[in-house]
Amino acid sequence: MSDINKVVLAYSGGLDTSVIVRWLQDTYGCEVVTFTADIGQGEEVEPARAKAEALGVKEIYIDDLREEFVRDYVFPMFRANTIYEGEYLLGTSIARPLIAKRLIEIANETGADAISHGATGKGNDQVRFELGAYALKPGIKVIAPWREWDLNSREKLMQYCEQHKIPVDFSSSKKKSPYSMDANLLHISYEGGVLEEPWAEAEEDMWRWSVSPEAAPDKPTYITLTFEHGDPVAIDGERLSPATLLERLNKLGGANGIGRLDIVENRYVGMKSRGCYETPGGTILLKAHRAIESITLDREVAHLKDELMPRYAQLIYNGYWWSPERRMLQAAIDESQHVVNGEVRLKLYKGSVSAVGRRSPDSLFDERIATFEDDAGAYDQKDAEGFIKLNALRLRIAAGKGRELT
Amino acid sequence: MSDINKVVLAYSGGLDTSVIVRWLQDTYGCEVVTFTADIGQGEEVEPARAKAEALGVKEIYIDDLREEFVRDYVFPMFRANTIYEGEYLLGTSIARPLIAKRLIEIANETGADAISHGATGKGNDQVRFELGAYALKPGIKVIAPWREWDLNSREKLMQYCEQHKIPVDFSSSKKKSPYSMDANLLHISYEGGVLEEPWAEAEEDMWRWSVSPEAAPDKPTYITLTFEHGDPVAIDGERLSPATLLERLNKLGGANGIGRLDIVENRYVGMKSRGCYETPGGTILLKAHRAIESITLDREVAHLKDELMPRYAQLIYNGYWWSPERRMLQAAIDESQHVVNGEVRLKLYKGSVSAVGRRSPDSLFDERIATFEDDAGAYDQKDAEGFIKLNALRLRIAAGKGRELT
Amino acid sequence: MSDINKVVLAYSGGLDTSVIVRWLQDTYGCEVVTFTADIGQGEEVEPARAKAEALGVKEIYIDDLREEFVRDYVFPMFRANTIYEGEYLLGTSIARPLIAKRLIEIANETGADAISHGATGKGNDQVRFELGAYALKPGIKVIAPWREWDLNSREKLMQYCEQHKIPVDFSSSKKKSPYSMDANLLHISYEGGVLEEPWAEAEEDMWRWSVSPEAAPDKPTYITLTFEHGDPVAIDGERLSPATLLERLNKLGGANGIGRLDIVENRYVGMKSRGCYETPGGTILLKAHRAIESITLDREVAHLKDELMPRYAQLIYNGYWWSPERRMLQAAIDESQHVVNGEVRLKLYKGSVSAVGRRSPDSLFDERIATFEDDAGAYDQKDAEGFIKLNALRLRIAAGKGRELT
Amino acid sequence: MSDINKVVLAYSGGLDTSVIVRWLQDTYGCEVVTFTADIGQGEEVEPARAKAEALGVKEIYIDDLREEFVRDYVFPMFRANTIYEGEYLLGTSIARPLIAKRLIEIANETGADAISHGATGKGNDQVRFELGAYALKPGIKVIAPWREWDLNSREKLMQYCEQHKIPVDFSSSKKKSPYSMDANLLHISYEGGVLEEPWAEAEEDMWRWSVSPEAAPDKPTYITLTFEHGDPVAIDGERLSPATLLERLNKLGGANGIGRLDIVENRYVGMKSRGCYETPGGTILLKAHRAIESITLDREVAHLKDELMPRYAQLIYNGYWWSPERRMLQAAIDESQHVVNGEVRLKLYKGSVSAVGRRSPDSLFDERIATFEDDAGAYDQKDAEGFIKLNALRLRIAAGKGRELT
Repeated sequence: MSDINKVVLAYSGGLDTSVIVRWLQDTYGCEVVTFTADIGQGEEVEPARAKAEALGVKEIYIDDLREEFVRDYVFPMFRANTIYEGEYLLGTSIARPLIAKRLIEIANETGADAISHGATGKGNDQVRFELGAYALKPGIKVIAPWREWDLNSREKLMQYCEQHKIPVDFSSSKKKSPYSMDANLLHISYEGGVLEEPWAEAEEDMWRWSVSPEAAPDKPTYITLTFEHGDPVAIDGERLSPATLLERLNKLGGANGIGRLDIVENRYVGMKSRGCYETPGGTILLKAHRAIESITLDREVAHLKDELMPRYAQLIYNGYWWSPERRMLQAAIDESQHVVNGEVRLKLYKGSVSAVGRRSPDSLFDERIATFEDDAGAYDQKDAEGFIKLNALRLRIAAGKGRELT
Repeated sequence: MSDINKVVLAYSGGLDTSVIVRWLQDTYGCEVVTFTADIGQGEEVEPARAKAEALGVKEIYIDDLREEFVRDYVFPMFRANTIYEGEYLLGTSIARPLIAKRLIEIANETGADAISHGATGKGNDQVRFELGAYALKPGIKVIAPWREWDLNSREKLMQYCEQHKIPVDFSSSKKKSPYSMDANLLHISYEGGVLEEPWAEAEEDMWRWSVSPEAAPDKPTYITLTFEHGDPVAIDGERLSPATLLERLNKLGGANGIGRLDIVENRYVGMKSRGCYETPGGTILLKAHRAIESITLDREVAHLKDELMPRYAQLIYNGYWWSPERRMLQAAIDESQHVVNGEVRLKLYKGSVSAVGRRSPDSLFDERIATFEDDAGAYDQKDAEGFIKLNALRLRIAAGKGRELT
Repeated sequence: MSDINKVVLAYSGGLDTSVIVRWLQDTYGCEVVTFTADIGQGEEVEPARAKAEALGVKEIYIDDLREEFVRDYVFPMFRANTIYEGEYLLGTSIARPLIAKRLIEIANETGADAISHGATGKGNDQVRFELGAYALKPGIKVIAPWREWDLNSREKLMQYCEQHKIPVDFSSSKKKSPYSMDANLLHISYEGGVLEEPWAEAEEDMWRWSVSPEAAPDKPTYITLTFEHGDPVAIDGERLSPATLLERLNKLGGANGIGRLDIVENRYVGMKSRGCYETPGGTILLKAHRAIESITLDREVAHLKDELMPRYAQLIYNGYWWSPERRMLQAAIDESQHVVNGEVRLKLYKGSVSAVGRRSPDSLFDERIATFEDDAGAYDQKDAEGFIKLNALRLRIAAGKGRELT
Repeated sequence: MSDINKVVLAYSGGLDTSVIVRWLQDTYGCEVVTFTADIGQGEEVEPARAKAEALGVKEIYIDDLREEFVRDYVFPMFRANTIYEGEYLLGTSIARPLIAKRLIEIANETGADAISHGATGKGNDQVRFELGAYALKPGIKVIAPWREWDLNSREKLMQYCEQHKIPVDFSSSKKKSPYSMDANLLHISYEGGVLEEPWAEAEEDMWRWSVSPEAAPDKPTYITLTFEHGDPVAIDGERLSPATLLERLNKLGGANGIGRLDIVENRYVGMKSRGCYETPGGTILLKAHRAIESITLDREVAHLKDELMPRYAQLIYNGYWWSPERRMLQAAIDESQHVVNGEVRLKLYKGSVSAVGRRSPDSLFDERIATFEDDAGAYDQKDAEGFIKLNALRLRIAAGKGRELT
């Protein structure tokens, strides 16, 4: 294990990754570089510096990646109306490729020959981190302590801290949660604890980002979202940066009880797992994006997008953001978004979001043709006969030859 | 136009189709057979008999098709988690193939050589009726009065009634609605009127089946839905026939403000149109079906279903229920549903429905493997390394050859 | 019919379209602009000028579109390895969008308000011409004489010529063929005559571009084809323009009996039809393109292309080249081709073409890893165990729960 | 390693698997059961008995699986016109699930707790064997000696034989081949040796099953193949069992130089590899199956099959025959084949196979409609106008709003 000289660790400053710092130093006899990112998880990242220093780390990276995260990862994904398994908005998945990219960039800058992370051997995150790392730097080494060590319980971890004199802040509220959580600007997730029984309802006090629909205001909130080339750029006419906009949507959604989700999902490593998610802003954004597309996208383009979307969602969920097939699909998706411009008016109320209006300079909605009233010849109803007759021809020939369909 | 002897008309008893009866008699000099079906639209169908008789119709068919509708059309469609364009539950679309089938059966029974319907030349329903009819009886003739006559306004229709002494009940509330509506056990739809402006919000008093979320009870309603082979069979343990079950879900959903939808959709004939829908029971059913699938379906089966679904939805929306390609997809979907058995617990509250619990004798959820706690060797975390390494191999080779992904 | 002032006609100079010139002048009382294109059909186009003049045409367009045809239509299509219904290389389909585009450009230049063509009401070509025209100029009028007139046999056409003193060259060899033919640089097609009986074998003397495999040389011909970004650019090291290259491949293929095809295909208008095709150069090109992709494309990109291809082929066959969904797919396909560079060595022999060698500066073939010999650690065989175990996990869990697969 | 009591080995009787018998006995101290199958590889299987006995094996299974192989694996696969990566007919892949199933059946019969095979850690076959085994018996243990031992060259293997006094027949012609080969009734494959250089042409004397096209007869051979429900049942009217039929096609194809293939393919484990294949009968069968489908399948069914096929091929190639998703796709494919009945006439000549005639009681080819001659009203050409106009409507609206496509 002497062939590792320096390793870049995705470091949160919490118990697990603090243990990992020391474990890497001891086990591999190597230097550890820590990397801590603000991707909107709602916790200060600066305190990680002192913790890393206390562990003897010399190269410490602390980055604010919020704008990059939303602009280059979240928004491109939402252009595809991406949902995994019909429900999950991929809040955790979409943050991983950015972390992987930064780990590799820092490895290049610091001359490290390995990266490390605190994800377990059962989950998707290990896959996402490592596929990204290998795709961006094929010779990189990866150390995944949870797959190697035997510190497989909280008790053993704390014992290790004591033995190695690792200072841990045991008053941290997050640490006392019975759930395994992950948060960024797009969502917060909960796993483990009582959720391991899929029949058990999540406890109300588990949810952190949103009020319960019951507790939400009795009056609806209306907002207008402006899109340019498929991405949201303004709320109620106020132009906002990507991260600011998503943060604002999170507040609006959370206050109205929007974006809670409780599902059982299929992990890439082959097991089913129960997860609860709060994605307030993302839930609003998905509804709004579909609404602006509904008046600006050609029908066949919209349908093609719908057919490609599950594949695209799987790629992101499974960790293949950094892959040529994701780029290929992204090229198709992005090609469709030039015309996705305009405004959507939304009603937020006690857990649900509805699109109540949509308008666009690029609208393909043609009132003259669509009207139930006299259309002054904009549409010739007689065309429908030939349309139906030729679409039916193959069916008629088959029926004429005795084919049965009932 | 003398080559039509007898025509079977899809007859509602309302103004439009009453005019059509007389117009067919006059224009084609043919006998008219009326067919009126109860598919749960919420109006009495028996009064159509007297109206038809008054118009001189001798062969009058009045059928209660509610159970057949839900059992053989709605439930098979929900096995696929079918949604058109990401949002629409296909409430109108799925009723049409049943009507088409009965029109043809009655044509066969009565020796009619044509069918007729009251759908306009701009919409999808003409296509659905006629594709179905041609597919089931290739030599059938189709008369679509709205594509032929010039009675293209309500005024002209009423004038025609007066001239031809057609008795019309002008007190009917439905007729005074500014919207074009369609209803069956799955949904009620609204088009036209102010909805022709996509930016305008629908008026609250348009909605007929559901209370507004604002007016819904302040306490959530919990129900448990039981599934067998992908279809719901009981609510809270009470076994119900398909139509009864869906009706019950509609009441539960409607009382909790669930299932309203406001969209712009793409019609098969090539235009965009604005539609509002209430699908209370269907909205609950979709959520519940996904939840029971989440613990009983294999991952790859679930993903394959998700990828095929948009295509299947397009087939139904466009009117190809009676087609060999729909049957081919149905065979795949049904093959997946043998194991979709169990119970889902749902929370209904002010417009939203959440799955809060799911359990099944066929569950593939494996707590021993999924747990965050010690799994006693059920899963070997070390396997993940090889899994990731080989999944990454093609990416590493490409990166090693200098391919760039960022 | 007085509302047409000027019409641009796709004019071949043959019997049918000569009749159409006069028929348009007489029926619509409008001016006719003729457009004749050389797309490699192997006949002189210049004689069309005198024929048009003799019919009183004043605006005559004669274009050499061969390079544009191959560069902007044939090659982009081959990037997708496009085949319709598993066999047809789309030789006719791919020429139509170019003709449609030129018709509209000429209509714009000459101020014409309509276009016209000589395709029948039963075929695909009418659809391709007209969809293209409408997509590029939505207000254009289209006149399709074969759908309007009653000159539905060769005899009536010739009678019309006599009556209207239209000079026709009855010695033309093409006209005496019992087949309906169409040719361009990509292929020549045959329909009708004895081919209308799908059990009947095509006669040997029908084929015009290729010798029979029996008559081909007894020695194989070897060639090397060079690709850049997915397009062929050189044969045996000699750099050639797109049209020249395809022409050369046609000669090579034809001389070796390559590229004959006899199929029954499904037309967009709903009927099946028998067609025979000779596509010598295209058949070679398809084989070569797959071969160069085989060493340069990532696996998942290649598989995604294969899954999208049938859809893309249908779009082109059905006439949707000029559509946003074709552009969307093209964006994905083109994104994949940057790396498709290198050389393929091919063996042509008596009707078949084989790839016998392929090499590329962008090759992803890694001998060190692929070798059956000692790979010096390039690949760790032990990784395969974890790879298989986790890929099997969902299957094992299901089997453990009693799911049967046999 | 003491926890294995009895292991079932896929045993060929050759050098490698004979070494494995002894190695398993020595390394695991367990009893070895050998299983040798005749799947048409063209070598006697009975001699394996004496060899196994000489190695001390007590339970010896020797099965003739040829009919089962063709009937239950090859034919179902051909119903989908299955090709991997546009070219490969999956000859090796399709035999593996049958071997896996028999290994598990024998494990159940003999009370073995493990299976073993002679596939390397670099290839696809290990994956196919093991995924199948795990899917059919989740608790089975798998021993893959090539991933465990260090006998990674032919020299070391022979040394091992000598040390352990394993009798090997060094005169076997197969063993002297420089290629790694695999054969069954569907094909024979070649890998390794000079083929590891993708630019090098395969040597003529490598090919074993087919004459070179150059050496094939100068006169074509015509045959007629009869299909029932998508499977071939007779050649030239002579009804044959599945295995007999495929064997006959192999002879016919081989004699005419048909079915050679030289490709670079993408393995599931992530590397590219060069393979040469001879699939004479399969190549004929694919052509014939497409031809009989061309007149019997509905267009949309055919297109749906084409779009699903690459996915289905990947499943088989990757080893997921025994999976619920393969069954789901198979259900769709099989649903389409009831009507695939009739005859195809084929011409075999010097390396190529052409369909020259096809006929069927279930033909959807309608001469009356397809004809270029007067169709007596079977098809109304005027219908085409409405068909085109409405298909163009969305494109016209978009163009009218200024969307550009060129």
